[in-house]
Amino acid sequence: MAKDKKVEQITDMDVDFAQWFTDVVTKAELIDYSGVKGFFILRPYAYAIWENIQSILDTRFKELGHENVSMPVLIPESLLQKEKDHVEGFAPEVAWVTHGGAEELAERLCVRPTSETLFCDHWSHVLRSWRDLPMLYNQWCSVLRWEKTTRPFLRGREFHWQEGHTLHATPEEAEAETQQMLNVYADFCENSLAMPVIKGQKTEKEKFAGAVDTYTVECMMHDKKALQGGTSHYFGDGFARAFGIQFADKENKLAYPHQTSWGMSTRIIGGLIMTHGDNSGLVLPPRIAPIQVMVIPVAMHKEGVLDKAAELVSRLKAAGIRVKSDVSDQSPGWKFAEYEMKGVPLRLEIGPKDIENGQCVAVRRDSGEKITVALAELETRIPALLGDVHRGLYEKAKKNLIDNTRPAKTLEEARTIVAEKGGFVKTMWCGDLACELKMKEDAGVSSRCMPFEQEHVADTCVCCGKPAKKMVIWGVAY
Amino acid sequence: MAKDKKVEQITDMDVDFAQWFTDVVTKAELIDYSGVKGFFILRPYAYAIWENIQSILDTRFKELGHENVSMPVLIPESLLQKEKDHVEGFAPEVAWVTHGGAEELAERLCVRPTSETLFCDHWSHVLRSWRDLPMLYNQWCSVLRWEKTTRPFLRGREFHWQEGHTLHATPEEAEAETQQMLNVYADFCENSLAMPVIKGQKTEKEKFAGAVDTYTVECMMHDKKALQGGTSHYFGDGFARAFGIQFADKENKLAYPHQTSWGMSTRIIGGLIMTHGDNSGLVLPPRIAPIQVMVIPVAMHKEGVLDKAAELVSRLKAAGIRVKSDVSDQSPGWKFAEYEMKGVPLRLEIGPKDIENGQCVAVRRDSGEKITVALAELETRIPALLGDVHRGLYEKAKKNLIDNTRPAKTLEEARTIVAEKGGFVKTMWCGDLACELKMKEDAGVSSRCMPFEQEHVADTCVCCGKPAKKMVIWGVAY
Repeated sequence: MAKDKKVEQITDMDVDFAQWFTDVVTKAELIDYSGVKGFFILRPYAYAIWENIQSILDTRFKELGHENVSMPVLIPESLLQKEKDHVEGFAPEVAWVTHGGAEELAERLCVRPTSETLFCDHWSHVLRSWRDLPMLYNQWCSVLRWEKTTRPFLRGREFHWQEGHTLHATPEEAEAETQQMLNVYADFCENSLAMPVIKGQKTEKEKFAGAVDTYTVECMMHDKKALQGGTSHYFGDGFARAFGIQFADKENKLAYPHQTSWGMSTRIIGGLIMTHGDNSGLVLPPRIAPIQVMVIPVAMHKEGVLDKAAELVSRLKAAGIRVKSDVSDQSPGWKFAEYEMKGVPLRLEIGPKDIENGQCVAVRRDSGEKITVALAELETRIPALLGDVHRGLYEKAKKNLIDNTRPAKTLEEARTIVAEKGGFVKTMWCGDLACELKMKEDAGVSSRCMPFEQEHVADTCVCCGKPAKKMVIWGVAY
Repeated sequence: MAKDKKVEQITDMDVDFAQWFTDVVTKAELIDYSGVKGFFILRPYAYAIWENIQSILDTRFKELGHENVSMPVLIPESLLQKEKDHVEGFAPEVAWVTHGGAEELAERLCVRPTSETLFCDHWSHVLRSWRDLPMLYNQWCSVLRWEKTTRPFLRGREFHWQEGHTLHATPEEAEAETQQMLNVYADFCENSLAMPVIKGQKTEKEKFAGAVDTYTVECMMHDKKALQGGTSHYFGDGFARAFGIQFADKENKLAYPHQTSWGMSTRIIGGLIMTHGDNSGLVLPPRIAPIQVMVIPVAMHKEGVLDKAAELVSRLKAAGIRVKSDVSDQSPGWKFAEYEMKGVPLRLEIGPKDIENGQCVAVRRDSGEKITVALAELETRIPALLGDVHRGLYEKAKKNLIDNTRPAKTLEEARTIVAEKGGFVKTMWCGDLACELKMKEDAGVSSRCMPFEQEHVADTCVCCGKPAKKMVIWGVAY
């Protein structure tokens, strides 16, 4: 019984990008649909990507002094309601546990949509003195949000993420933490996922429920839409006051600490699929690819081929490469298509002729380029080629971002760009909500962020003509 | 504001073991209580222990070919009901989600108490051919069971665990997997946690809901009660039939696969606290201790002391030891008590006299023994001492297990042992449920397991006098 599903074509990404995405996540064996809408099964290949993401981020968080903890999965309704803006933002989209065993609960409990309230409740128990600060916590978990429309990775009723939560003695320290963690996300997107980002601040309208300031890294997908890569929030002492979190400062006076939170989720996997994928399937950046190199023996029943393939695997493994070989009885052609679909960054072909010539053939997943590699140079050439694939992916995505981010001075100009070319529009903005809403209504775009790298596009707001305060990047967002 | 809570005495473990346990988990900063009964917060120190446990087990699972996946946190009621024995075992103790956002759900969803039904549903979608077998999956997650009485680590309404789930072409392969994973747990308990185990099979009464056979590793706590360390289940093809999971075998005929599951949870942290702890607090086995060595500078304001302490830390770190130093302004005595409470396996004291003599003083947490270590030999002596602590803990726990496991030939004898001495009783058993229930009723003990290492205690059943089939270990269990 051949796995014939593999040879089926996937939808052309430039014809129907949404269907292409669905085809890729199922045919690359990332996702299965569970019996409950919006709850997706992360199959081994998807979970291995997430584990690589976790490993890099977790190491970085710990280098910066953060510790992992585990908060409960359920939040009492009364606790969720303690911070006014926060509950307004989240209550409409949470799932409620009303019964435990045979009994109806006295108070209903929501499955956590985010854990600010739990961290605050805990801190109100344990924080005593300035000596205890800062408290630098992180949690890896899944959260629930009862979304109406759902898509694998991009919008699930359950998704995995990390949520960092920190407490500091002063606003300055908390602000610095917020910026530091945003930079961790930016570096991670660019250096590990080959996804270029725009760093900036969210508008009042787009910020997190309960935050003073929200910062974001925004990415552009292949279809020129925006995806938020990670966000970092500064809360001031609002939650601390709502939850009665206080500490004795060095003068032994009671003070409220200042707080941050920051998160990145499995959404970023959807982002990297839509940034790098092509019409042959997934294309994975080497630094998070579960398999970086797939060795395919050609004419594998000829003497010495399987032995040589095994030797390549063990040499590359010893060099720290995540490598496998496929010695199943499928044809080489089937295998090529399979690992292209799965986005393995490099394929190594080795056959009798190659062995005779002391070489193998490396095929780059990103460009299709074939490179002859002398076997003697395997341990230096393969890591270098993986670096080339990373840079190739990054440059291509960067070009997409730059080529499709256009300045506009008037609403009319913005509307035309969005309608005819898509992508991001950068305009000046007066800071008023009315103009932000008008951009959505008339041009169909929302504010993605006010980039840290500001440019002077014009003197006046794109909508109302009043003096401009900030340059804003606008786009259609996932 | 001094952290004066540290100097408070904890309850004497031989006076009130339950209160001692509660004191230790709070004062060692492992646990905080959340606002919902039975939901415990794992503070950084507890979570770091769990991460070390995860890291060792996860590496071993992967070496044996297992892959991690993520299944949904919610299970539809109809899915939970597909396997009759399974639903009877779990339905009474699950939490139910009945509302998503503002809407009442058409079908209520339970928060997973375990994920067999989800894995089976997934496999029924994706299994096609013998080529796909075995499927060797594992999941790290938390699960919910709506228990009436709850205690940190030992019985929570939410707890963390790993659940392995595997599918095999033949019963023999599935049985071999069940045994293999039980051995992984036994090795882990003994070699990483210094907890000696008894390996054996559960009786019909005590086995997992829906399993054909359940195997267990049983441990003895300081108070001579039993704690189940980990379990491994063989399911036959019962779930496969209930969920319609089939594959085309090599002759292209449809067949049902055979299934296993196996799990270890954060309960084991409760187990290691109750195995090794003493009246000064926690005692952590070195291989999972978040901090293996704590360097305490003595007279630290004298010239050169802080520099030398920092040098010791960096040398030990380079040698692969998890080491910290405490250079806060607390007194050395306060620090000694603090890291005794936290169970750090080795304390290193370094002061001006030590520096003069080119040495430091190592203090073993398990025995209190003080050992002078020449600074020149730091990198060899410290790992050796950590090994000694591990062996010391293991031997002490092993002695407790052996000394407190007693044979009994009659029910009267068993009852007297349990009442007067506590610990485990080993007796012969005819295999009848009635006799198992009588042991519970008359002697107050439940069957822990039928050990793989059988002994001939007598010819006849301890209860009914009929011919014996198996030797059973009985005890009072957590």
